[in-house]
Amino acid sequence: MSYVTGLSCIHCGKHYTVDEVDYYCPDCGYEDGILDVEYDYDAVAKELNPAVLRQSRAFSMWRYLPLLPVEDPTKIQHLQVGWTPVYDAVRLAAELGVARLFVKDEGRNPTASFKDRASAMGVVKALEKGADSITCASTGNAASSLAGFAAAAGLPATIFVPERAPQGKVAQLLVFGARVFAVKGTYDQVWELCMEAAAEFGWYNRNCAINPYLIEGKKTVSIELIDQLIQQYNGEMPDWVVVSVGDGCTVGGVWKGLVEMNKLGFLPRLPKVLGVQAAGCQPFLTAWKNNAPLQPTDADTLADSIAVGHPRNFRKGMKAIVDSGGAFISVTDEEILDSIRTLARKAAVFGEPAGVAGVAGVRNAVKQGVIAANETVALLITGNGLKDIQSAIKAAGAPTYIEPELAAVKVALAGGSK
Amino acid sequence: MSYVTGLSCIHCGKHYTVDEVDYYCPDCGYEDGILDVEYDYDAVAKELNPAVLRQSRAFSMWRYLPLLPVEDPTKIQHLQVGWTPVYDAVRLAAELGVARLFVKDEGRNPTASFKDRASAMGVVKALEKGADSITCASTGNAASSLAGFAAAAGLPATIFVPERAPQGKVAQLLVFGARVFAVKGTYDQVWELCMEAAAEFGWYNRNCAINPYLIEGKKTVSIELIDQLIQQYNGEMPDWVVVSVGDGCTVGGVWKGLVEMNKLGFLPRLPKVLGVQAAGCQPFLTAWKNNAPLQPTDADTLADSIAVGHPRNFRKGMKAIVDSGGAFISVTDEEILDSIRTLARKAAVFGEPAGVAGVAGVRNAVKQGVIAANETVALLITGNGLKDIQSAIKAAGAPTYIEPELAAVKVALAGGSK
Repeated sequence: MSYVTGLSCIHCGKHYTVDEVDYYCPDCGYEDGILDVEYDYDAVAKELNPAVLRQSRAFSMWRYLPLLPVEDPTKIQHLQVGWTPVYDAVRLAAELGVARLFVKDEGRNPTASFKDRASAMGVVKALEKGADSITCASTGNAASSLAGFAAAAGLPATIFVPERAPQGKVAQLLVFGARVFAVKGTYDQVWELCMEAAAEFGWYNRNCAINPYLIEGKKTVSIELIDQLIQQYNGEMPDWVVVSVGDGCTVGGVWKGLVEMNKLGFLPRLPKVLGVQAAGCQPFLTAWKNNAPLQPTDADTLADSIAVGHPRNFRKGMKAIVDSGGAFISVTDEEILDSIRTLARKAAVFGEPAGVAGVAGVRNAVKQGVIAANETVALLITGNGLKDIQSAIKAAGAPTYIEPELAAVKVALAGGSK
Repeated sequence: MSYVTGLSCIHCGKHYTVDEVDYYCPDCGYEDGILDVEYDYDAVAKELNPAVLRQSRAFSMWRYLPLLPVEDPTKIQHLQVGWTPVYDAVRLAAELGVARLFVKDEGRNPTASFKDRASAMGVVKALEKGADSITCASTGNAASSLAGFAAAAGLPATIFVPERAPQGKVAQLLVFGARVFAVKGTYDQVWELCMEAAAEFGWYNRNCAINPYLIEGKKTVSIELIDQLIQQYNGEMPDWVVVSVGDGCTVGGVWKGLVEMNKLGFLPRLPKVLGVQAAGCQPFLTAWKNNAPLQPTDADTLADSIAVGHPRNFRKGMKAIVDSGGAFISVTDEEILDSIRTLARKAAVFGEPAGVAGVAGVRNAVKQGVIAANETVALLITGNGLKDIQSAIKAAGAPTYIEPELAAVKVALAGGSK
């Protein structure tokens, strides 16, 4: 029994009961008809308020159960997802030129990315609906987290990836026992094939841009951030929340979580959201700057998790930035590699390229006067650096090769070689 | 101010104050003279008891501060280490043929391995002693965790690796800003060079087999395990604790933690410890079976974290198994690859080869009658599978290649292909 009151289409505004539709608004189709889950917030507030959270000993995303669309909590799987650490990154704040910087390390989730929050939710919904299989199209973190949570539930998962997907990423899916189709085609073809197959075979569809429940998992990251700042940092609240943007689902979820925490009285003032895009793939930034509709672009960046030329959740992503009074900003691949090093050396967190892009995003936003030097920033690191060791190698530099003699160490040290 | 009363040599039994020695027993030398940290357990018990832990909201290894050799808690770094999840792995228990199986996922630590517990401790001791640099010899998890915690502290780290160390692992060290010497020599030469350099330059020495404080960090894994079983699983206690064994430090730490929890009254009955070695590198198993001294061997296994032919902490490792009435057991590389799959599919935890070896270890121990079908087992998974994606690829199998058409999906499904 949840406090969900229904679903509403963010395009046409039409309302549905949860039994009427499973995914997007049938009137608008899946490119536009993305649905939002709505709650009875007065009822939620009775179970989710500062007094309750102060006492709660549930340290996972299920800590926020009254604000999640879960009808049957016995379907929640055992993997501990969420309650990832928030660090007060003093040296990194100084480096980037802001007053205070909180870093939330989402790479600490079960399959090492933020996407676990969505997959954990997706698997619950699949089980509630009696699905005997679940599917998604992705080569990245969404796929590996789905494979992990499906394995936890003993639920067969079918994952569609482009033929050219990196062998290491595909291996992780197969290790978890997912059935993996390597499709000889473009990513767009892979996505369409997955949509068709889901409909044909009745597989539960975990694609975040068309399934309204997935973003409910994602929103827990900002709900939890605010909760942790209250519990652990005397309620110091951010002026900005910073996250990288690919298809728009994540930033949309982040914004929904903030709005709900504001509604529930935890968050007195809504922060602005900074959406970080790669310079080689910035359809959101372009549309936002020109106040124009989406123009799909090429995707030329090493940050594969945000290399999305045709964002499938454009409306929700754009709404997050516009409604918050925030901004989009872009970062080059060079700046992303520098971010990997800077975050690791100044805050001791090792992130993947899309995960760390916000570091350069903050630096650029300060330079451009978007973020002021006296502001407090919360930065979401969405994936672990071990997910993409090739980029780490590019960022790392080289070791010093020496003979196995103390004299050689002395020479190297004297030479100042690193 | 800690409750440490001194250090004692496990070889000659000589006692030292903490100010007299930094590392091994000077009389016995570093091959034999490993020291144990001793505490005033009566004093510890006043601060660390069931009532205190039930109320504690510190969810990291520092929860057990009264039982750790920390003189100055301000030296503790910000990275959240420990309080890794313990899962009741019902399907895996059935698969392996034991009554109940708890899986503790140590891959959830800051740099994705158990070794973070030791490095977190090592960096505190280095800072307390006023060291301006820290060093270790390793290509693996010890090195990456040291690099991470040194970065957290802003403490320069110098890491010695063999020239042939995998590029990916070296990259992680460099990303964290460590100075990395790639030594043209064998691992034994690397180790000796690191020992020499530490002495010559006054760098704090993090090598676990000669530094008595590191194992104090490691012991927190079994202290925490028992604590979590009390807090989360109604105090169900294991008959066996299972961990893979390389140089012997980890299993030694696991045993010390259990003994201390028993001493403090948390653990009514000491479990047996199962030490798992790779069939291609089993010096502990051989010595234990033959009741003979250590004979260094070759190291022929893909489980690199336990590919230790010359264990540097043989005495403590052997003592753990003998004193607990436990056993050593070996597993083949094929069994390790199967363990990667089995653990991922039955418990949804993706581990590295040495990390998962205990899965096959339990299976073999049940087959050999070492572990009984009605016993409860706790299994420590010491590292994340993302640490060694090459082994995951070996374990994974291949995807199904198809054209981007629904018909192709149907054919593949009908063919029963995976």
